[in-house]
Amino acid sequence: MALTITRTQYPKTKPQDYSKGFGNILTDHMFLMDYTEAEGWHDPRILPFGALALTPATMCFHYGQEIFEGMKAYRTEDGRLLLFRPMDHMRRLNHSCERICIPQVCEEELLDYLKELLKTDLDWIQDSNVDSIYIRPMIIATEPVFGARPAKDYTCMAMLTPGRPHIPKGPKPVRIYVEKEQARAVRGGTGTAKCAGNYASTFAAQAKAKAQGYTQVLWLDGAERRYVEEMGQMNIFFVIKGELITPDLSGTILDGITRRSLLAIAKDLGYQTVERRISIQEIMTAHADGTLQEAFGCGTGACIAPVGELTYGECHMNIGNGSIGTVTFTLFERLTQIQRGLVPDPYGWTMEV
Amino acid sequence: MALTITRTQYPKTKPQDYSKGFGNILTDHMFLMDYTEAEGWHDPRILPFGALALTPATMCFHYGQEIFEGMKAYRTEDGRLLLFRPMDHMRRLNHSCERICIPQVCEEELLDYLKELLKTDLDWIQDSNVDSIYIRPMIIATEPVFGARPAKDYTCMAMLTPGRPHIPKGPKPVRIYVEKEQARAVRGGTGTAKCAGNYASTFAAQAKAKAQGYTQVLWLDGAERRYVEEMGQMNIFFVIKGELITPDLSGTILDGITRRSLLAIAKDLGYQTVERRISIQEIMTAHADGTLQEAFGCGTGACIAPVGELTYGECHMNIGNGSIGTVTFTLFERLTQIQRGLVPDPYGWTMEV
Repeated sequence: MALTITRTQYPKTKPQDYSKGFGNILTDHMFLMDYTEAEGWHDPRILPFGALALTPATMCFHYGQEIFEGMKAYRTEDGRLLLFRPMDHMRRLNHSCERICIPQVCEEELLDYLKELLKTDLDWIQDSNVDSIYIRPMIIATEPVFGARPAKDYTCMAMLTPGRPHIPKGPKPVRIYVEKEQARAVRGGTGTAKCAGNYASTFAAQAKAKAQGYTQVLWLDGAERRYVEEMGQMNIFFVIKGELITPDLSGTILDGITRRSLLAIAKDLGYQTVERRISIQEIMTAHADGTLQEAFGCGTGACIAPVGELTYGECHMNIGNGSIGTVTFTLFERLTQIQRGLVPDPYGWTMEV
Repeated sequence: MALTITRTQYPKTKPQDYSKGFGNILTDHMFLMDYTEAEGWHDPRILPFGALALTPATMCFHYGQEIFEGMKAYRTEDGRLLLFRPMDHMRRLNHSCERICIPQVCEEELLDYLKELLKTDLDWIQDSNVDSIYIRPMIIATEPVFGARPAKDYTCMAMLTPGRPHIPKGPKPVRIYVEKEQARAVRGGTGTAKCAGNYASTFAAQAKAKAQGYTQVLWLDGAERRYVEEMGQMNIFFVIKGELITPDLSGTILDGITRRSLLAIAKDLGYQTVERRISIQEIMTAHADGTLQEAFGCGTGACIAPVGELTYGECHMNIGNGSIGTVTFTLFERLTQIQRGLVPDPYGWTMEV
């Protein structure tokens, strides 16, 4: 489909400080595309960033048919712009659509439109204070009458926000609180999809953790509260006796693209990796006998978040003496170097815009 | 807070046929009220029904902080307008808010505003083709920047739609499909809240059921897929050996106001009632030995939906020979008569507008 581009006549003044810009600072343009039953997906367009007019009867407000993706493009030292595994993100976007009955998009076309959006706002990524840009495609149900059924009309949107600043030495470890009461997902639920409802449901536990000085929550499985699932909105890894362990894709956790990338990199660097169920009891035992060496969360936004403390009830597990672990840092460095084009990409993960 | 009312200059032409109006036909006005951290809830106002201007970065599109209520007002034969248990709905609205970290509203004030909205659109409820009106209050996160945390800004909205036509003989039985794969809720999740994400997650199973000729899905518990929870967006009751059984409020199902009302009415009519876990196996056994007499769903929208067939895998259970059961009809008639002011209300459930 032919993309139309309407450029803003009033470009924003770029900020000096991007450190708190993630999700707050948005570039000058947005992408929109509509779906109706009669026309399917149609009218792809880039417009000046602005508002949609939606009445309170709009379906997404009531029944939560809303999905999103988060992917990044990195500026290389020689000025190229590299998308990281964009087709994996497009596929996951369609997986999220399928789970909550949103009509799927053409993955190749949507990616083309997103590249055009990046080109339209290229001056933002060329700012010397910015070295990556986060791309947020999303789809919401826009049928203007409510009823508890899949909507007939949708709008796909995308916007750009400067990525979090890169920290070459790796981020500092965070304190994590293991949530025993509330649950994020259960088998047969929506845990594998990036749908809006999965996030609001986590805020109460997150607020409780923050009030106690923790950065995030570690989620256990919904059925038994025994097996580790996700950390906040990230996948989680543990290093026990030199082995890299992450929960398997059992149907309740997100099939993270950073998770998948780190597993591949780790194997190629010679680490033993395993995807399997791992209980909080096993982690406590490993901590007690001194074999729990490292733990970290991972995701597109922050890349890697080392875990410095894990608290389960009265059990406070300190991990790694307050600094990022060797395995964690090795994986972090290797992945970020590939993403930023500092080393060759043997996997074909990066795509130049 | 002082409510401001701006009346439309262009009232809509009222339709002749309201039969498919639920959620489609909306009255002339809407209620709005905003929340900011600095001001709390403020600026309650009634406006001509219309659109909000929201950018794609608006928080509710991403993380699903969206809750709603559904309550009804009934027109009596002598022309009065009776709200049914409105304070129970206000309390549940605040319960939903609490679960996903939306700031609570003042229940009495919101109810006052909703009454004013009803008065503003009184000509709609006075239409001889309409005998009830459905009130949909809702709250969405409107902070215009995204981040996976509770929003700082919200908008409370309310709109009115004509209620489904009353059927004095009771509605016809529906065919129900027991979902074995997907799950609606799990202990520690959001099953007790009317939050948007709870609905989108059910659409795939609902679509599968509809494709096979069923009206709705019966949900089993998320942890074991053994115990009955809800039917579509309704609570469920069974009549077995003369006893009225409904799943207890175990933390995964909605504390339905129709459910609660029917339990009270049934007790006063001399029926044995019990709220307890009930497995799908127990229902199959009762059907096999001939003691499963009736089954029905209940909720504000449809009041009661008798179950004529329940299918679990290869087991097709026919219930009640295609007509509404005696207990079901007795409860339906008594409840609707109280709601419509046809008999005295000994419970104090109705409130005149």
